[in-house]
Amino acid sequence: MTESSPLSFAWLPAIPSLNNPALQAQVSASIDNKTKPLGALGQLESVAQQLGMIQNSTQPSLNEPQICVFAADHGLTRHGTSAYPNAVTVQMVHNILAGGAAISVFARQHQIALQVIDAGVATDLPYHPQLLHHKIRYGSRDALNEQAMSDEECVAALTTGMAIVSKLPGNVLMVGEMGIGNTSAASLLLARLGKVPLHECVGRGTGLDDAGLRHKEHILTQVLALHAQAQSPFSALAALGGLEVAMMVGALIQGASQRRVLLMDGFIAGVALLVAEQLAPGVRQYAVFAHQSAEPGHQHLLRLLAAEPLLQLQLRLGEGSGAALAYPLLQSACLFLREMASFESAGISEQAAP
Amino acid sequence: MTESSPLSFAWLPAIPSLNNPALQAQVSASIDNKTKPLGALGQLESVAQQLGMIQNSTQPSLNEPQICVFAADHGLTRHGTSAYPNAVTVQMVHNILAGGAAISVFARQHQIALQVIDAGVATDLPYHPQLLHHKIRYGSRDALNEQAMSDEECVAALTTGMAIVSKLPGNVLMVGEMGIGNTSAASLLLARLGKVPLHECVGRGTGLDDAGLRHKEHILTQVLALHAQAQSPFSALAALGGLEVAMMVGALIQGASQRRVLLMDGFIAGVALLVAEQLAPGVRQYAVFAHQSAEPGHQHLLRLLAAEPLLQLQLRLGEGSGAALAYPLLQSACLFLREMASFESAGISEQAAP
Repeated sequence: MTESSPLSFAWLPAIPSLNNPALQAQVSASIDNKTKPLGALGQLESVAQQLGMIQNSTQPSLNEPQICVFAADHGLTRHGTSAYPNAVTVQMVHNILAGGAAISVFARQHQIALQVIDAGVATDLPYHPQLLHHKIRYGSRDALNEQAMSDEECVAALTTGMAIVSKLPGNVLMVGEMGIGNTSAASLLLARLGKVPLHECVGRGTGLDDAGLRHKEHILTQVLALHAQAQSPFSALAALGGLEVAMMVGALIQGASQRRVLLMDGFIAGVALLVAEQLAPGVRQYAVFAHQSAEPGHQHLLRLLAAEPLLQLQLRLGEGSGAALAYPLLQSACLFLREMASFESAGISEQAAP
Repeated sequence: MTESSPLSFAWLPAIPSLNNPALQAQVSASIDNKTKPLGALGQLESVAQQLGMIQNSTQPSLNEPQICVFAADHGLTRHGTSAYPNAVTVQMVHNILAGGAAISVFARQHQIALQVIDAGVATDLPYHPQLLHHKIRYGSRDALNEQAMSDEECVAALTTGMAIVSKLPGNVLMVGEMGIGNTSAASLLLARLGKVPLHECVGRGTGLDDAGLRHKEHILTQVLALHAQAQSPFSALAALGGLEVAMMVGALIQGASQRRVLLMDGFIAGVALLVAEQLAPGVRQYAVFAHQSAEPGHQHLLRLLAAEPLLQLQLRLGEGSGAALAYPLLQSACLFLREMASFESAGISEQAAP
């Protein structure tokens, strides 16, 4: 695997283009003829337009929405980059599967199928019907010493993410994550691939204090310098990322290749999308952005992706929780397009000519 | 009814105080012990806290949510203050009842009971199981010539709004409106009772062009000057308001008196809350703000009410549609409080001491 050989990635699926001016005009006319003032449903109207383009239909509909929570540990945490101990990753995986985590509650609320994927948790996990065992290794490597993943491990994570999604039903995909220390990986990838100063990419994660935040930034600065050669999307992902991040990248690429709507959670998922878009241009067109998180790097990321998030609730939980919370708005965008009357069908006077 | 006699309003119900420091601490501790970083559910956490206080419980739950859409016409529209003809009010009432309006779609999506109240539509309406006939008169009076409502009509609208809500089940109330020309009434009330310059309260409503906007502001300036004496909340409501606005005010007061959660829609509903709070102090504590609308006066209103809206989707539709769209977030706030595991119950390490 070398950076100079894009042909190495010929195994990545093609991303269907959404460029279809005739359909665009049809969907747009359908939205404008609904019994409401022009543009009065605001951002829901642009989401409806996008859903129409993704599903190639003026009557989009959502079915069997899926949340995949990818879990892994991070070698870098041995340097004290997180407020929580490493053991919390596996404890939270159990909590999600037991139904007690935020994502468990919100997925249940909206009848979203939830599966947890062990992408690289540092301990062994027992059988559970909602748990998929795809551990690449027991936690990523220490990026302060070597690549977080070898090239082979990174390819394995990408292709596993693709394979998992290819087997799932439904036309809406949400990816979430659980991995103590993964805001560090996301910050590093955003700094490198988004060309954002590292300082502006680093936040408190799950709750570092001021000294902890300074220490995290200090460590990440060293990591970035160590991997100065890792400039391509793949090299950066392998050197700076994490097993769950790489698996999310694969999942998003597969989802877009199958024309699934990608309902994007916050900072970590968003960074996975940035990598996915650089590896497989076009993935971004399938993304609807659930929320703007409280993690400072997320604003840069949303700007880079030209994203308009649906929610600004100061969430910073991960797990895909923001995506699940925004899911009903995605449904609303479909439903108004499918079920609202038109001025003509309802016999209502259109706007008076100026 | 005179402004100098506050005793005239002794028929307004008492609003229960939510001041309960012991419960506040209990709810807050319950939120903080959930398996998530402190504060990681952002604004949902403050909503959960408020719901706990309203329901006097650490386990709030929502049942039988109700949307009341109050419909009326406005005498002032004869002066060309709206982009749509007056006839659209009744056409849209039929559309809502037929299931084809935005609020019909979103209420159905979230299983919210929907009723339309004829508060003062300019034409007669036939029987429909979801329509309540409480017409005070055929449209409000022309506020450029006289009070929009006589004092008696305004009292009738307020008490009718109260009576309607008192008969409804459930513990969540949303009020919406349908009334061509009602952003004018709302702008006038905000200018008078919120002491905001009229210019900053006036927007395009359902879609006025630049000339239409200037004309609307010109007319509203005259109305405000004509009713310079109408300074008390009641006098201002009668002189400048509308039949549906006054009925919404009564509905909100009744709802708060029964400790219902008031999930507030946009500009018009928000102005009704401003009036309600001034007539019956304490109502505001029961309000959760669904969204910030694209109508410019709404920002002033939210500031006056110290409101943090859940959604910023550039909606400007009315009908209660924004409230219905935000309803799942209200549910999520309850559900995380009721269903998420605590650190203790899930056996998860708490945050490392700094």
